[in-house]
Amino acid sequence: MACNSSDNTGKTIRCKAAICRKAGEPLVIEEIEVDPPKAWEVRIKILLTSLCHSDVTFWKMDTALVAKFPRIFGHEAVGVVESIGEHVEEVKQGDTVVPVFLANCGECRDCKSPKSNQCSKFGKKLYNGMPRDGTSRFRDMNGQTVYHFFCVSSFSEYSVVDVAHLVNINHYPLPPEKACLLSCGISTGLGAAWKEADVEEGSTVAIFGLGAVGLAVAVGAKQRGATKIIGVDINDEKFEIGKRFGITDFVNPSTCGDKSVSEVIKEMTNGGADYCFECIGLSSLMAEAFNSSRNGWGKTVILGVEMHGSQLTLNPYLLGRTVILSLFGGIKPKSDIPLLANKYLDKDLSLEGFITHEVPFKDINKAFDYLQQGKSLRCIINMDP
Amino acid sequence: MACNSSDNTGKTIRCKAAICRKAGEPLVIEEIEVDPPKAWEVRIKILLTSLCHSDVTFWKMDTALVAKFPRIFGHEAVGVVESIGEHVEEVKQGDTVVPVFLANCGECRDCKSPKSNQCSKFGKKLYNGMPRDGTSRFRDMNGQTVYHFFCVSSFSEYSVVDVAHLVNINHYPLPPEKACLLSCGISTGLGAAWKEADVEEGSTVAIFGLGAVGLAVAVGAKQRGATKIIGVDINDEKFEIGKRFGITDFVNPSTCGDKSVSEVIKEMTNGGADYCFECIGLSSLMAEAFNSSRNGWGKTVILGVEMHGSQLTLNPYLLGRTVILSLFGGIKPKSDIPLLANKYLDKDLSLEGFITHEVPFKDINKAFDYLQQGKSLRCIINMDP
Ligand SMILES: [Zn+2]
Ligand SMILES: [Zn+2]
Ligand SMILES: [Zn+2]
Ligand SMILES: [Zn+2]
Repeated sequence: MACNSSDNTGKTIRCKAAICRKAGEPLVIEEIEVDPPKAWEVRIKILLTSLCHSDVTFWKMDTALVAKFPRIFGHEAVGVVESIGEHVEEVKQGDTVVPVFLANCGECRDCKSPKSNQCSKFGKKLYNGMPRDGTSRFRDMNGQTVYHFFCVSSFSEYSVVDVAHLVNINHYPLPPEKACLLSCGISTGLGAAWKEADVEEGSTVAIFGLGAVGLAVAVGAKQRGATKIIGVDINDEKFEIGKRFGITDFVNPSTCGDKSVSEVIKEMTNGGADYCFECIGLSSLMAEAFNSSRNGWGKTVILGVEMHGSQLTLNPYLLGRTVILSLFGGIKPKSDIPLLANKYLDKDLSLEGFITHEVPFKDINKAFDYLQQGKSLRCIINMDP
Repeated sequence: MACNSSDNTGKTIRCKAAICRKAGEPLVIEEIEVDPPKAWEVRIKILLTSLCHSDVTFWKMDTALVAKFPRIFGHEAVGVVESIGEHVEEVKQGDTVVPVFLANCGECRDCKSPKSNQCSKFGKKLYNGMPRDGTSRFRDMNGQTVYHFFCVSSFSEYSVVDVAHLVNINHYPLPPEKACLLSCGISTGLGAAWKEADVEEGSTVAIFGLGAVGLAVAVGAKQRGATKIIGVDINDEKFEIGKRFGITDFVNPSTCGDKSVSEVIKEMTNGGADYCFECIGLSSLMAEAFNSSRNGWGKTVILGVEMHGSQLTLNPYLLGRTVILSLFGGIKPKSDIPLLANKYLDKDLSLEGFITHEVPFKDINKAFDYLQQGKSLRCIINMDP
């Protein structure tokens, strides 16, 4: 798949991007300039991108230390390599690639260990620029720097991404929208069920929060043979939706009466679920997920990022239980995303149902509305409709 | 080894026991009557017993709901079967046995799973009587009931223990004092290193609290090939002692200056220890152990039982880390204690150095003094010196 008939290698590209000039304000489609890739960098043409909860979280966040504006959000995407910088050997022009917010340099102690997915070479960079030198490759038409987000910035027709943040899926003939799903949220949920919890046949599972990540946990748990998959959500409609992803039972915390959610789940599972997953980011729910897990071997996987800065408070007398604070479901981008792609191609994994909406790039703000109103699981943003 | 020339099968035995009549008061050696074992019960002659921290904790605890007095403490021991009740097939008269506070019925879902050591058939019983019917087999000379402790009550020449709480080690020719060590604390530390943490060759370990349990963690970690084993204790003398058990480095929290223990450990381990163990029972230390563990794969095993009823508060942003709330180091008594015995007999495991004191039964209160003053690791109490 060639991205462009005219070869812009080494030149600045002018294209459209959805810029956020101020936290919480609607994005504005503007012309920008995208620099050519420096060493170890790759300029990609975004084919499709989708909106993940983290985009919304950071879009709302007006914290100067973390976020610089104007910036280009978006980190769940699939693209095609337009040109490569020096030293880039892993991808070539025309390759289909999935950018990932998490680096995977392949050389550090973490990347070499099967136990970690937290690249220690790139782990400590802030998210406003390129991971190696911290600078930006974007400028607006006034020459002002436009900042990056999560090392991806996929809400742009073109972006520059470090090769450590790219997964080459050229040999995996996935439909582009399925590739896009594997870029962040869905992989997180699948990884949590498979890698972090290692869900076993016949087990019981409780999932707190039935957004795309929680439903991907359900898909992963069902694929592993879990027999009872309890969804917990304050929106009753999520039960019907969840059934399509493997949810077998449902608990709405607002209709539990005098009982806590964990009491209800313990009754439903004869003492507690084997595996619990928190997919929201509230410390109170994290503790409730832990309370819902079984003595002796209950594992609770925390996927949500605590949204109010609260500490996690647990009852230390609930013995035999394990808590895992997971990043990206334990997924190591360069090795695990191709595995997931293969599972999909082998029909061992269903990715159906996650895409509930699709908008052209010009209507990107609608994707924010759908997600915030709880209407969408994933809204695909089509760059070239 | 026959326990007694005269056969008392089916009869009440009169013998000496160290009775605690009131929480925190010195034990008094008195004559008691020990009933014959009922169905699934075994009467054992205690050969040796030793004092574990949990004895001291519960000895001090004047909580009517949990503890009934007068009672007979002691749960770390080795004994010989004097007589058996109906249905007992696992042990016979004269067998050497290790009693364990933790039941292992072998039939429940937990006992059948390799993942749990929390027998669900006997797990919920209170600790004042026999696990099946809750009644006592002890009476004092006034005919008053004397209560059990932890289903073992080894501070008596004879005790009655449910067969679910006994490990038959008759085919393992261990010296009795080594068998006694495997009954509780030392097995806890070894199990934590081997089963819960699964310490790997070349890894770094931090152990909070260098009592017998913490030092057993060190022995287990060293045996697994850990290269840096950091001991954390407020008593500097523990470093010299610890070296004999595999401790390679030492941190005294009171001499860390402006730095927290976790900061010091992170510097010593280039980012955090691979495996951390809390062996005290203070929620603040549990959190500090967690903080000392490495991002990406750090595992913290909590062995201490929180002594003030505090909750465990953790920073939920320390991703990639796992916390395990362990009971008895994950040891399944009937299968794992024989494994440990075999390792000792194969010289694959050293149990040297743990026994620092020995007293005759009549001086049992000295064992309490030694442990509370931090002088002893394990004090063997010899029933028949
Ligand atoms: Zn790396
Ligand atoms: Zn995301
Ligand atoms: Zn059992
Ligand atoms: Zn003990």
